[in-house]
Amino acid sequence: MDARSAVESMLRPDLRGRTAYGAPQLDVPVALNTNENSYAVPDVVVSAMTEAVAAAAAGLNRYPDREFTALREALAGYLSRGATMVTPDEVWAGNGSNEVLLHLLQAFGGPGRTALGFTPAYSMHPIITTTTGTTWVDGMRGVPGAGAFDLDPASAVAQVRDHRPDVVFLCSPNNPTGTALDLAVVEAVHDAAPTALVVVDEAYAEFARPGTPSALTLLAGRPRLVVTRTMSKAFALAGGRVGYLAADPALVDALRLVRMPYHLSTQTQAVALAALRHADLMLETVGAIKEQRDRLVEGLAAIGLDPVPSDANFVLFGGLADAHGTWSALLERGVLVRDVGIPHYLRVTAGTPQETTRFLDAITDLVPTHRTGAAP
Amino acid sequence: MDARSAVESMLRPDLRGRTAYGAPQLDVPVALNTNENSYAVPDVVVSAMTEAVAAAAAGLNRYPDREFTALREALAGYLSRGATMVTPDEVWAGNGSNEVLLHLLQAFGGPGRTALGFTPAYSMHPIITTTTGTTWVDGMRGVPGAGAFDLDPASAVAQVRDHRPDVVFLCSPNNPTGTALDLAVVEAVHDAAPTALVVVDEAYAEFARPGTPSALTLLAGRPRLVVTRTMSKAFALAGGRVGYLAADPALVDALRLVRMPYHLSTQTQAVALAALRHADLMLETVGAIKEQRDRLVEGLAAIGLDPVPSDANFVLFGGLADAHGTWSALLERGVLVRDVGIPHYLRVTAGTPQETTRFLDAITDLVPTHRTGAAP
Repeated sequence: MDARSAVESMLRPDLRGRTAYGAPQLDVPVALNTNENSYAVPDVVVSAMTEAVAAAAAGLNRYPDREFTALREALAGYLSRGATMVTPDEVWAGNGSNEVLLHLLQAFGGPGRTALGFTPAYSMHPIITTTTGTTWVDGMRGVPGAGAFDLDPASAVAQVRDHRPDVVFLCSPNNPTGTALDLAVVEAVHDAAPTALVVVDEAYAEFARPGTPSALTLLAGRPRLVVTRTMSKAFALAGGRVGYLAADPALVDALRLVRMPYHLSTQTQAVALAALRHADLMLETVGAIKEQRDRLVEGLAAIGLDPVPSDANFVLFGGLADAHGTWSALLERGVLVRDVGIPHYLRVTAGTPQETTRFLDAITDLVPTHRTGAAP
Repeated sequence: MDARSAVESMLRPDLRGRTAYGAPQLDVPVALNTNENSYAVPDVVVSAMTEAVAAAAAGLNRYPDREFTALREALAGYLSRGATMVTPDEVWAGNGSNEVLLHLLQAFGGPGRTALGFTPAYSMHPIITTTTGTTWVDGMRGVPGAGAFDLDPASAVAQVRDHRPDVVFLCSPNNPTGTALDLAVVEAVHDAAPTALVVVDEAYAEFARPGTPSALTLLAGRPRLVVTRTMSKAFALAGGRVGYLAADPALVDALRLVRMPYHLSTQTQAVALAALRHADLMLETVGAIKEQRDRLVEGLAAIGLDPVPSDANFVLFGGLADAHGTWSALLERGVLVRDVGIPHYLRVTAGTPQETTRFLDAITDLVPTHRTGAAP
């Protein structure tokens, strides 16, 4: 038996034939495909991170603080800037919000249990779910037509009652469609699933339009509710891999049963703390990115395409005859966007003004031949 | 329902009632409990790490190299210093060898599958196994009496044939007992379990006594064999959280199905690369630690206790009437060692000469009243 067959025969049966997650990592002039923050970490923060690592490096022979106490305090402080006071024992963190979500599914999912999400949403939700042996149930957002990607409370509740999931994923602002959820949806889902874990993935919360409340405001008295966040987007720290969540301390405590001990390295704790000490500066790009996001929506509408309103740092837009063909044509012009698998739609990240211009110029150039109904 | 009950009711049934991994993180003068390297990272390497993070920090707004290409190349280069040539596509890494082992169990374990280990061994093996829903089977090392902690090929094969596991853990040098395995055991286990994954955990390989071969020499032609390593011990990088493995490229490829994308942060890749560029310097402490290890064995034998021969940076020693009582008495004297749960035994890490002296002085002081058969 050759090596590949030997490995395949040992593989967990439900993993056979699967392909790994693979957003292309291509070296292109304009990368607007993974919703990164296009702005480099500011010099002041680079210096702070460098000093923090310099101070910690000699002691790397010792294990890190398994409880990442200072980081939990800093994250709680940051979250408490909003409408809700969050304490350190209500905070958990991991190497990216993916790991935080994995810990949740490891603790509260598993074989024989189901997790429901409302598709299209973050593509890692089903992957993380099935990685833990939990069954994924593909729910639906809205109905075709205007507001096709909205999720209203009645529809969400009906789907929850129908599937009786053990875990429900909500995503607000929703990736890849862009809009935030009305908190009434969160409350309705929570009440309709009286024993389920309800996860609200707020990775893009900082980009929401004014007046969009966070599900953090619902945490009090709801020990089955979790709000996940990340430093990858607004904090411009995708490379730093720091995701976190807020929830009841009893729920946080359960995650200690499944995390690998010392999962957050000393250098990761140091880098994240340095960024959080400069939170105001790190978040200064958020306003500029929102301006470009709004410019994308306006620019795409102006050329006859169909952008979805967005509370995030990206815009999903439809009206394309062949989305993958347009994706390739944009790439040929040095602009990498994301084909999220929704027919006729692509997703583009809001970057710098220059990147937005490059993208809008390229798509404007393409639209006469690429839009739905265009003569090929 | 109160919060704790609500969370408990959502918890995966097999996790209920469990307590989290918890080696105490106490601030003591002499910490010899977690097999850390007692020597700080050298100044030259601190500078290299600092420069690497300084160079990478501005770009933290971008996701890290998901394939950690440079790190895999450096790890392959390091492993190739031994008797076996290892290529980058045979290498995988994670946030500590715990995560690497988790990836293995996620891919090749799971519900309905079993993993066999030979107890006493690394305490995380059963925890990682059951975290993934895999059933743990507690095998045995040796028989009571002289060489009680040895594992011979015949016994290992008999246990493998008896339990027919899907995954077999071998640990060489074995934690907490200290001795390396004869490669005949690895070969025999591999052949006796013709469809199983065989994991040889070599976290302490660099401390082995001369003439101890690595299971890396067995990898060629054995796609079901994996050798795991860590930078936490000989490389003095416990805080850096970098574990890795070598295996057939087809096996490595399967791990991409279960790892979270971008699981290794930019700063972790940078710190590990800086350490690997200074491998000779980082490993300079290994000789000094082995000297203290041998001094521990001699010193403990000299006062009538029963140290187990060791190829690692720690020594397990028996002959105590009440191991936990001795653990507490040592802690009162400022020396933290590990009670691994084996009656009459404790484990002590080989640290600096000063730390070894502090420990030997303390245990010498205690032994008249603490050894087996002593008048209390």
